[in-house]
Amino acid sequence: MSLLVVGSLALDTIETPFGKAERTLGGSATFISVAASYFTQPVRLVGVVGGDFPKKELEYFEEREIDLEGLQIVEDGKTFHWHGKYDYDLNNRESITTELNVFADFDPIIPDTFRKSRYLCLGNINPELQKKVYLQMENPKLIVADTMNFWISGKKEALIDVLQHINVFILNDSEARELSKEANLFKAAKKIQSYGPKIVIIKKGEHGALLFYEDELFSAPAYPLESIYDPTGAGDSFAGGFIGYIAKTDDISFENMKRAVIFGSTIASFCVEKFSLDGTRDLSHLVIKDRFNEFTRFSAFEPAEL
Amino acid sequence: MSLLVVGSLALDTIETPFGKAERTLGGSATFISVAASYFTQPVRLVGVVGGDFPKKELEYFEEREIDLEGLQIVEDGKTFHWHGKYDYDLNNRESITTELNVFADFDPIIPDTFRKSRYLCLGNINPELQKKVYLQMENPKLIVADTMNFWISGKKEALIDVLQHINVFILNDSEARELSKEANLFKAAKKIQSYGPKIVIIKKGEHGALLFYEDELFSAPAYPLESIYDPTGAGDSFAGGFIGYIAKTDDISFENMKRAVIFGSTIASFCVEKFSLDGTRDLSHLVIKDRFNEFTRFSAFEPAEL
Repeated sequence: MSLLVVGSLALDTIETPFGKAERTLGGSATFISVAASYFTQPVRLVGVVGGDFPKKELEYFEEREIDLEGLQIVEDGKTFHWHGKYDYDLNNRESITTELNVFADFDPIIPDTFRKSRYLCLGNINPELQKKVYLQMENPKLIVADTMNFWISGKKEALIDVLQHINVFILNDSEARELSKEANLFKAAKKIQSYGPKIVIIKKGEHGALLFYEDELFSAPAYPLESIYDPTGAGDSFAGGFIGYIAKTDDISFENMKRAVIFGSTIASFCVEKFSLDGTRDLSHLVIKDRFNEFTRFSAFEPAEL
Repeated sequence: MSLLVVGSLALDTIETPFGKAERTLGGSATFISVAASYFTQPVRLVGVVGGDFPKKELEYFEEREIDLEGLQIVEDGKTFHWHGKYDYDLNNRESITTELNVFADFDPIIPDTFRKSRYLCLGNINPELQKKVYLQMENPKLIVADTMNFWISGKKEALIDVLQHINVFILNDSEARELSKEANLFKAAKKIQSYGPKIVIIKKGEHGALLFYEDELFSAPAYPLESIYDPTGAGDSFAGGFIGYIAKTDDISFENMKRAVIFGSTIASFCVEKFSLDGTRDLSHLVIKDRFNEFTRFSAFEPAEL
């Protein structure tokens, strides 16, 4: 089924203790749409880039059958640029430069042909822009939104407004605690559900993810990665794998959403194994499926008698 | 099958933000043997108490069919006393008093009738005492040992010596990092396996537990507790539920050990819901089985196609 992805496209410079990548493809919409493209077509992209955005990357999107009709190209502008540096344990990052450039004036206009998309994934952008997007949609079946601590502390009211209109909210554990003011994640999730979304997914990095689906709970394990090279885009890749599988199957039941969480975790695990988009740029159904099956092996156990 | 438990018996005074319990039954051997007694008989206990140890608690052990032949009662001595205070998030605790009393001179003598026990669980005590115990055993099928950060920093050499002689080592995430000097838990587990035990279980509190069984991995979810009243004894209860189920089934395969980890997690989740031993003192097979089944619901997902 059709999936619309809205978010940022960026040229990132990333430093980790293991290396550096300069002006490499990044942004929430990039990671989400690439991840989703392994599951469903068409993936429709709405975002903005400058004239400096590499042509070969536009061609790459097209190869992955990502529909660029909604991509605004400001020829005399520069693409959003972020320069981040991770410390040794990769949990903390410092933003060395954030140049919004053409993204500063981004007005997400949804092409008429995109407005009937059945699934909508709102990448991590200003919640006021997220609202602008869903107001243009014509009765989508499911809206998924991601966010980050920057909006929780800086645009909380706008974010709470967005939460009343979406179905699935994805955030990480520290964001969940900050937004809900609850240390306990199970309490935090219930409180966030009370703000609107019936479905809340809390990502816990090396500890996996929790899916709260109305009153139900699913606890997904983490993939046992011994080394993480670059965490950039892991959360977006999770969201993309998740919504991509949902859109492919057009099934929003709890049972199916569990599988979608595992596919999201799968794509995120590939993402962090290499720099930037290199981890997810060129996957195959075979390696995705194999890793999904590994998750089954890590978490399955048989019934027992007492 | 027969199970021998060796560890401390204590009278604890515990303060949490939710209340206080004075001179209540505690100690690693207490929590382990009570937890194990729901699964297997006989559970044989070796430890030491003073003349102040309440008679009704000895009767309680006997009701639970815990064999006290190896319990040393020093009539003119006082039982090990610990007074601990937990801060609001329950992750940090302060030891206000630690009076070793009769435990200071504890010499774990294993009665002849206990030496052929098929399973041995070494509770968290000085690793030099743990060694004294297994040297007295006659070819046990499986030895499980627990520890704590106090021994990792204070008796590391003795602990490494113990690790060469046991089969299953249980510790929590911060202890695993401290012992292995590895931040990544998957690397930490491999390093600890290289010290001796083929099987390592890392407890992660609210994030569940990881079972490393030779080259295999099982990731167990945490029970979704919204409130924890007292974490005292949770790790011991985990160990007791784990080894109790293994001893009951006499099956040390990976598949069965996964179930044992879930039973360990089950008993630990009951433990923290009330003060001290109150959470596990009076369980039934029915509530244990129900909660085991809940763990299945939280972690099971169906295969998927791409």
